Amino acid sequence: MKKELQTLKGFRDFLPEKALEREKIFETIRAVFQKYGFLPMETPVLEYKEILTGKYGSEGEKLMYSFRDRGERDVAMRYDLTVPLARVIAQYQNELPMPFKRYQIAPVWRADNTQKGRYREFYQCDVDVVGSDSIIADAEVIACINEALKSLGIEDVIIRINNRKLLDAILQNSGVAKNKVVDAIRVIDKMDKIGEAKVREELTLVGIKTKARQELFETLKLGLEDSKDIETKLAGLSGAGELAELVEILLEWGMKNYQIDLTLARGLDYYTGTVFEVILPDAPQYGSVAGGGRYDNLVGMFLTSPNPSSRGGESKGRSVPAVGGSIGIDRLVAALEELELIKYDLVSDVLVCNLEEALEELYLKIVREIRESGVKTDFYYTPAKLDKQLKYADKKNINFAVIIGPDEAKKNEATVKNLKTGKQEKVKQQKDLVKFLNIN
Amino acid sequence: MKKELQTLKGFRDFLPEKALEREKIFETIRAVFQKYGFLPMETPVLEYKEILTGKYGSEGEKLMYSFRDRGERDVAMRYDLTVPLARVIAQYQNELPMPFKRYQIAPVWRADNTQKGRYREFYQCDVDVVGSDSIIADAEVIACINEALKSLGIEDVIIRINNRKLLDAILQNSGVAKNKVVDAIRVIDKMDKIGEAKVREELTLVGIKTKARQELFETLKLGLEDSKDIETKLAGLSGAGELAELVEILLEWGMKNYQIDLTLARGLDYYTGTVFEVILPDAPQYGSVAGGGRYDNLVGMFLTSPNPSSRGGESKGRSVPAVGGSIGIDRLVAALEELELIKYDLVSDVLVCNLEEALEELYLKIVREIRESGVKTDFYYTPAKLDKQLKYADKKNINFAVIIGPDEAKKNEATVKNLKTGKQEKVKQQKDLVKFLNIN
Repeated sequence: MKKELQTLKGFRDFLPEKALEREKIFETIRAVFQKYGFLPMETPVLEYKEILTGKYGSEGEKLMYSFRDRGERDVAMRYDLTVPLARVIAQYQNELPMPFKRYQIAPVWRADNTQKGRYREFYQCDVDVVGSDSIIADAEVIACINEALKSLGIEDVIIRINNRKLLDAILQNSGVAKNKVVDAIRVIDKMDKIGEAKVREELTLVGIKTKARQELFETLKLGLEDSKDIETKLAGLSGAGELAELVEILLEWGMKNYQIDLTLARGLDYYTGTVFEVILPDAPQYGSVAGGGRYDNLVGMFLTSPNPSSRGGESKGRSVPAVGGSIGIDRLVAALEELELIKYDLVSDVLVCNLEEALEELYLKIVREIRESGVKTDFYYTPAKLDKQLKYADKKNINFAVIIGPDEAKKNEATVKNLKTGKQEKVKQQKDLVKFLNIN
Repeated sequence: MKKELQTLKGFRDFLPEKALEREKIFETIRAVFQKYGFLPMETPVLEYKEILTGKYGSEGEKLMYSFRDRGERDVAMRYDLTVPLARVIAQYQNELPMPFKRYQIAPVWRADNTQKGRYREFYQCDVDVVGSDSIIADAEVIACINEALKSLGIEDVIIRINNRKLLDAILQNSGVAKNKVVDAIRVIDKMDKIGEAKVREELTLVGIKTKARQELFETLKLGLEDSKDIETKLAGLSGAGELAELVEILLEWGMKNYQIDLTLARGLDYYTGTVFEVILPDAPQYGSVAGGGRYDNLVGMFLTSPNPSSRGGESKGRSVPAVGGSIGIDRLVAALEELELIKYDLVSDVLVCNLEEALEELYLKIVREIRESGVKTDFYYTPAKLDKQLKYADKKNINFAVIIGPDEAKKNEATVKNLKTGKQEKVKQQKDLVKFLNIN
């Protein structure tokens, strides 16, 4: 194949069937997000490079698409939706309603290794609350993602929750040295992938002493069912109250589908409190299809120090609490396909066939009338064999074919073929076609 | 302002109000396109640079965002939606239903001079039919753009139409030398902007002789109302039949709002037949808000010659007829704002106020119940002065506030304030709140 006829590695075309499927998924998700009071927002694909640098670690920086533009500016393509959100908050802080609740469904770019089944252009679907430290905000993010997934037809959704403050406290309480906490979290976070035995081994490797390790595991393996468990078994530990409160609110909102998992860390990014991850027990191979948490320090990176000459120089606004979640669209679509929850919806309901050039005016009139009634209608532009036209209809997943040949035209009749069942019906008067199609 | 807190010149953030407005416009347009049997399609933002080069002229190439990626590939950001469509057709020709009808609403990038009020990142909204030379396809593109604009509430839409074959024929028929035709079209295309006198002058400058000029103007100024006019006054000229047929179909579909304008050329791009342009008489300052035409040679640029060793070596597939149109989203949004056709729709219908921490459980229960009834609901996370909460509701354009203080809680009542009218009503039983809000 000529190079000209390829997309870049890690980039994809979405042909109509797939594009329509994604459009419908986005629509469903948007409707749920709006029901929870979230608003859409859009930011540019290109940003000044310095806005994105220093936010994703050295690994992230390596994967960033950046270049110098014709105006000699260093620019970079959007790497995620969170850092641009933080910029927006800092830039427009006085104009925005606070707390600021926004969703954004948009592509991001990372020059990642495509062999891992990753794409270099992929969609993120984020929902965030900025400017509130209330745990209700954490619960709302989780609840609207949960409802979005249910709205897509997924019955079994499990939400694993934890709190980063609590995990830190558990580690320190177990006697893990302060300078080993980060290493230990990195290891514990892999529990799901590598199993307990391997985690114990790696904890030893990073220098966690046997006693600390033992105490740690005792705590991590506590079976915690509800807020009472948390409050009694983890009494006094920082973050335990937050986690208990989160559980209470989720239950208040009818979400019994949470699992408290003290090993959940969600990587080493910017999380500072609640963390969560969503898995689908009926499609476990796709791992977590959504996740997120509280990140109270990110937005502050964009806020300048208060004017030193001003009075009462408290560091106002330097720390802006925030919590958010993200649905991984590619994994979600794969899971929905696996669960047969993608309805290959009809694009056009009707194809008006074209059998005879002399009947063009009649066809055009009928096409117009059907469309005016609101029915999605396709017309085969040039006369062709019926067979060819029905094949076209089939490729477009069209439901009905309206067939009017010279005989039917003379008698003012029409034949309607249901392309799913093969059943043909005669409509005795062409003027009844619209009614017929709207009923069927 | 720190550079960090800026978008690049020519790039924009769309804060919630604007983003929501655009989302609703896109939804309306999409619904109409689908009614006409068009399907969505998505292509990547980045393409191999060689796919885009040689398609937009030297000016276009200068404005393209291109760079070398980390894998040493020369890549470019999408410059329009048409060339990627042509690539897709060539790449997947055997899989796609033909004629292939797709729409795409997506951003494109051009490093243009922003002083002309142009943006460097802007949305295009395209609808195209590939693989049919039927004039019905031309009419369908025009009709669905016309209906999309009407669906947005615009009452007065005018569609200027012409045919490039016809314009060529008129020029040659008037005695314009063949090697002057392109120059002449470039001048005539400016009729709208610079007026007739200036066009005459410039035609002289490019070397069109007086006699040819006179004959040309006689034809261009023919008042053409309908297909009969075209057929009698332009009899025998190439393209006249196509234009007459287009007019017939538009009328068949109830579109009397066309104007035949023989001076319309739509630039010097790839158009080969029908050209059209849409103007809004009530917002003329925005110029044409949509336009397009037939381009039968573009897709062929991506198709390789037939295998020379194969039999019956006709140049199969080398020329793929296509017709399309594009709505200029930025101009359209500006025009809709000017015409006061943007409904600043409610984002959330209801804000449940938070007056007392002790009532949190009650509030959460009420929020849940209202949301379950499908009403868009916001909750103020932390107790605050009512005034502050109502200001927040106002910023988010929320319609109703549900107010429950300790007194109301005791009596199992709620106050509902209509934030548009200021009117307050008492709901005597909290269990009737959902019903009340769903009625109002």
